[in-house]
Formats: sequence, structure tokens, C-alpha cells
Amino acid sequence: MNFEFFMPTRLVFGPGKVKEVGTYVKFIGKKALIVTGRSSAKKTGHLDMVTKSLEQEGIKWLAFDEVEPNPFTTTVERGANLARENHVDVVIGLGGGSAMDTAKGIAFMALNEGHVADYIAGKQGGDVLPIVLITTTAGTGSEANNYAVFTNPETKVKKSLKSPKTYARVSIIDPELMLTVPKKVTASTGIDVFFHAMEAYVGRRSQPFTDALALEAIRLVAESLKGAYEHGEDIQYRERMAWANTLAGVAINLSGTCGIHGMGHPLSGIYDVPHGESLAAVSLAFMRFNIFEAPGKFAKVAEALGVDVRGLTLSEAAEKSIEALRDLMDRVGLPKKISAFGITEKDIDTLAEHAYTKMTHNLEASPRVPTMDDVKRMYMESL
Amino acid sequence: MNFEFFMPTRLVFGPGKVKEVGTYVKFIGKKALIVTGRSSAKKTGHLDMVTKSLEQEGIKWLAFDEVEPNPFTTTVERGANLARENHVDVVIGLGGGSAMDTAKGIAFMALNEGHVADYIAGKQGGDVLPIVLITTTAGTGSEANNYAVFTNPETKVKKSLKSPKTYARVSIIDPELMLTVPKKVTASTGIDVFFHAMEAYVGRRSQPFTDALALEAIRLVAESLKGAYEHGEDIQYRERMAWANTLAGVAINLSGTCGIHGMGHPLSGIYDVPHGESLAAVSLAFMRFNIFEAPGKFAKVAEALGVDVRGLTLSEAAEKSIEALRDLMDRVGLPKKISAFGITEKDIDTLAEHAYTKMTHNLEASPRVPTMDDVKRMYMESL
Ligand SMILES: [Fe+2]
Ligand SMILES: [Fe+2]
Repeated sequence: MNFEFFMPTRLVFGPGKVKEVGTYVKFIGKKALIVTGRSSAKKTGHLDMVTKSLEQEGIKWLAFDEVEPNPFTTTVERGANLARENHVDVVIGLGGGSAMDTAKGIAFMALNEGHVADYIAGKQGGDVLPIVLITTTAGTGSEANNYAVFTNPETKVKKSLKSPKTYARVSIIDPELMLTVPKKVTASTGIDVFFHAMEAYVGRRSQPFTDALALEAIRLVAESLKGAYEHGEDIQYRERMAWANTLAGVAINLSGTCGIHGMGHPLSGIYDVPHGESLAAVSLAFMRFNIFEAPGKFAKVAEALGVDVRGLTLSEAAEKSIEALRDLMDRVGLPKKISAFGITEKDIDTLAEHAYTKMTHNLEASPRVPTMDDVKRMYMESL
Repeated sequence: MNFEFFMPTRLVFGPGKVKEVGTYVKFIGKKALIVTGRSSAKKTGHLDMVTKSLEQEGIKWLAFDEVEPNPFTTTVERGANLARENHVDVVIGLGGGSAMDTAKGIAFMALNEGHVADYIAGKQGGDVLPIVLITTTAGTGSEANNYAVFTNPETKVKKSLKSPKTYARVSIIDPELMLTVPKKVTASTGIDVFFHAMEAYVGRRSQPFTDALALEAIRLVAESLKGAYEHGEDIQYRERMAWANTLAGVAINLSGTCGIHGMGHPLSGIYDVPHGESLAAVSLAFMRFNIFEAPGKFAKVAEALGVDVRGLTLSEAAEKSIEALRDLMDRVGLPKKISAFGITEKDIDTLAEHAYTKMTHNLEASPRVPTMDDVKRMYMESL
């Protein structure tokens, strides 16, 4: 057993914590760039909460509110120019994964020359502006790891920038910010949490620390996602989903995701399908292809999803994980087919080619490593 | 639910990893002070492994090998003088909790004026030399937190220095170093791991992250301590105990210990009882006094210790935790009474006075907060 754990971010968890953000930022910088989506942070009042706290502590700020869902590498570069021109010394990401990832990218590119695509491809970077993250969804777990996922607008490839220095100094996880997340986004981001935990746990890069965090995250999602979906105003469900999200974010930091993200990213990159829904739509085919390669792990997933596995063989218990996942997705109205996004048989080759050649690292982390034909078959089964 | 997580140390886990220590240190410093116990690091060959790896990477070193069990504040100050005189720029702790804690203290005092006792009492410190820790026992968990416990030679008070900067940059957890730990030390350090996990979990400062880590640590100790004790040469038991130790170390970093450490420290401070044994000897009285204040938690402890709690009421399950702990201690030959160290009724007042006035913070974190009389009664019951 050989592994490393490294997650230097201070995680600050609690309802109302966003109103204290300035008390953390004041030890880090004097002029902040706040990175948000196009309008949501204004409409929800979250931006006001943040700027008020910054101003109370005498911290200057400006906003960059041009982040789109599935953010482009070009958006990062625009934001980095703004950061440089204005000599900001701290970057605050406020929003879901898109805003937080873009904040990481901007903090990185503000101090590094050239194009973000080169660094995604493996070029080594230097220093990075300090980063503070405030997650408004549960979510991508981006607040608890150093991943930042961007789509190249030309090639449609969706890949991660991962620098040892793109961990946030402080991440604020305030479940009150999540009370107004719409049902559909609650479902889509919540199932992303589940897949982070499950893929990190069943994948080939799993390790003992992952296992403890991931199973706990799965248990929390199983207990709370339906409640958060149906009673979004109930802080208790939001708290548990928020915590599951951060745990799963640490888990993927340690072990990464595998084939579900590998097959989901092309759907988002090429057809702009929301991240969580793209995963849901390919997940059942992935499970059927993989469970007998790691029945012990999938049996534990079933158990964490609430299945009573007593008296079952390992294979029987593993199979139950598929049913339990299907039930969970049904309860929160998630699509279980890629045809729901207008994908037809003629798109399969493009998707499979993209997944097989661009998402190799993820596919190879799956319990059962697929061939190109296997990938096609899984997409076909997901139609 | 409000809590923080912060543990910025890179944990490097794996058999043989000690031989790579230089590859980590070279990014941190050029001249290392290696802090060890009086002779063990030389006898076991561990010191040679470390110095060889440092020399391979061109790192200069000198050794400070004067650390005693239950190290004195005066030892820290001697080491800090040596560090200053020799202009070292990194401090490596190699050994059990005593050596690692002393390394933290030396790294701290090398850059801070005055006496370590003042900082233990609450004086704010500044910068600290970078710290690298190599744990040779499982253990105190010191490699995964910023605590450093020292005994004041005049007052016999055993208390923690806790600075936000005494986290190690890198901690190496190499289970091969533990293969030769003698049976008695395996038992005593292993039960310390159990108490870190249990006290963090049942105590009033517990939080969701603690819970996941602590219960996993308890399960690992329950499965592996007897094996590590009886078959010390089997790496598999050592690996699991090493991992449990680090998990529990993170748990106490988040939530601290409570009454067992509160009543154990005076036994070590005044009568020089080894740390783990002091805890074992007061633990059963602590359990009896506390379980009905948090039966749900003690029931989970029982379950993690391997008790089949199905069909039991919460109180019945909680009570089983006492039996299960007694069994665990019996299996590895630990004392269950303070009379084993020559303590008699006439010492109780001194012990209770010391615990009640000096270990208040720990006692107050217990599920049921004891009065001075309660503390006396628990020591009496432990005779
Ligand atoms: Fe994801
Ligand atoms: Fe301890």
C-alpha cells in the first residue's frame, strides 16, 4: 500500500460563513478579483454578501462576471488579463464549478506566460495568485481540490489544468447559499457528487484515504439528495449534500474519476450537455460493463446506497448497485439516456473517438479498461 | 453544523519510503537537524537510512539525539540553540511522538525568542523552520497534526505547544520502520491510536470529518493491533496500524482528545508512566462515567470494535464498548489499573488536582464533564 495525501486548503464549513469571507481574505490580499457567472451571483445576492464583507475589512475588489457553463480556455485568458491590468493580489471564485475553476485558471494565468492550453497539455507553471473559493452548489467539489476543467473552443476538448499550486488557500462551504439552487441543478450537481465518490472509490487509483471519504459521501447523497431536491429550502438536506460534495472533492483529489467522467466529458464538450446530466446518461452502461471486475467494491457502493446486502453473494450485491443508482436518479428526475439530449446513433463514433483519444487517462482508471469498441458499445447502450 | 478542516502536511505513505526522504527535503532546505531519541535511531539503522538519502541529494545534516520519553521543555531549548548555532534550515524528526514533537518544538524555538513554556501558555509565535517528520511507531499521530507535547521539568505539567505553523511540510509514514518495534511498545502506542480516535469521536469537539476518520481508525485498530503485537514482523498488520495512526492523528487535529488524555497526562508527567499505558489504566473508569451521556456514539465505537450490535438497545450497545475495549487491552497485555505503576490511594489527590487544574481543556471536552470529585472517583476506580 503506497499513497500520498495532500490537500492544503482550509475548509470553512457552516451556514452564514460567506458573510465572514473578508476576515479570511484580509490575511491573504488587498485587492480581489471576484470571478462569477454571468448574472446569478448578482440575482441571488451572493455577490453583495461577499463584497460587503470585503469592504468591511478594507479590501478592494472588482468583478469578472463572464464565466459560462463549461467555461472556455479563452474566458480564463480574458480574466487573467483583467487580473494583471488591475494588479489584483487574490482571486475569489464565487459560484459552481465553472466559476471556481475559472478562478483557479485566472489565478494561474495571471502569473504564467502563454496559453492555458499549453499548461493543460503538461507545460510546467510557476507561481499562482492566492485563491479563495466559495461554492454555491453541491457540486463539483472544486473547492477541495486543485483541478480546473476547461473546454477548448476550437477542439471542444474538455480537460483539466492541474497545478500543485491551484489549491485554494481558504474555501468557504456555506449551505445557506444553496437554499435557492433550482431543483434541476440540485439533481444534476448532486449526482455529480455521487459519481465523484463512486468513481474515485471503484477506480484503479483508489487508496485507503479515498475509501473512507468516498463511502461516507455516497451514504450522505443516498440519504439527502432526494430531500434537497424536493425540499430545497430545508437547510439540513443542503448541509449534508454540501458536506458530501466536499468529501467527494477530496476523494477525487486523491484518486481522480474514471470512465463515467471519461464518457461524460465529450457530451458536455461537443454537445454542451450539463455536466451532471452527461454523467447520469452514461452511468448505467458503465456500471453493467464494470461491476464484475470489482464486485466487492460495487457491493460496498450498493450498501452505501442503502441496499440491505445481508444474505446476498458478492455478485448479487454488486448488481444491486445498478438498481439503487437507477432509483436514485429516477427520484430526482435525471435522464438515464443520451438520446434525451438529441444524441443519435450517427453521433456515437464521434463521441467514442473523442472519449477514447482525449479521455484516455480516465478510461484507463476504470475497473475494467475498455477498448474503443467497448466505449462505442457503452454509448450505444446509453441511447 | 459549523467546522473547519486544515491539515496542510503532505502525507507520504508506503513501505521503503524512508529511503526517499532526501528527494522531498531537497525542495525544502540545504542543512538539516535530525532530531532523535538517545540511541534507538542508531541501533535500528533508521538514522543511517535517513542520512544516506540526504547525502545522495547533497543535503548537509547534523543530529540532535538527546530526546527522552516524555520530553522536557529544556530539551527543546537545547536543540533550538544547536539549530541556531549551526544555521540549519530544516528540522527532521525521526522516531516516535517524543522525537517528532521535539522536532516541532525545536523548529519553533529556533526562530522565536524566550521560553517554550510561554508559548505553551498562549504567547503568539512567529515563523517556524520547515519541519519533516518520519514516524517510527504507530503511534502518536504527531506526523499529521501540529501538536507537540512537552513536560515542564519543574512543575511536571505535560502540555501542548500548538502553533498554526508546526505542521510538517512532509511526513513519511513507512510501515517497514515499525517491523522491529518491541511488543510492549506496539501495544502501548497502538492503544494510544485507539484513544485518539475514540476521544476525538465521542468528545464535545467532534465534527463530521472527525467522525469518518475516527471510526475507520477504530475499525483498523480492532482488526490489526493484536496481529501487530503477536506477529510484529508481518508488514500487513504494521501497514494497517500505521494508517490507523495517521487517520487518528488527523482526527485529533480536528477535534482534540478529551478525558482519557486529561487523566493520563498527570500519570506520565508526575510518575513517568509511558503515555499509552497511562491512558489504558484510566480508560475503563472514564468509559463507565461517560457512556450514558452519548450512548449513540459509544454504540458506534462498540460496532467499530467488532461488536455485533444488532438487536441491542442503544444503551446495551454502548455498554458493550467497555467490554470490547477491555478485551482489546487484555489481548495485548496492557495494564487496566494505575496500581500497576505503584500508584496508591495517597496519590489520588495529587493526580486529581493536577488533572482538574492543568488538563481542564481536555476534561471539559468529555461527553460528561467531571467535577473534581468525579475525577477523584475515576482515579479511585482505576486503582
Ligand atoms: Fe464531475
Ligand atoms: Fe496520545
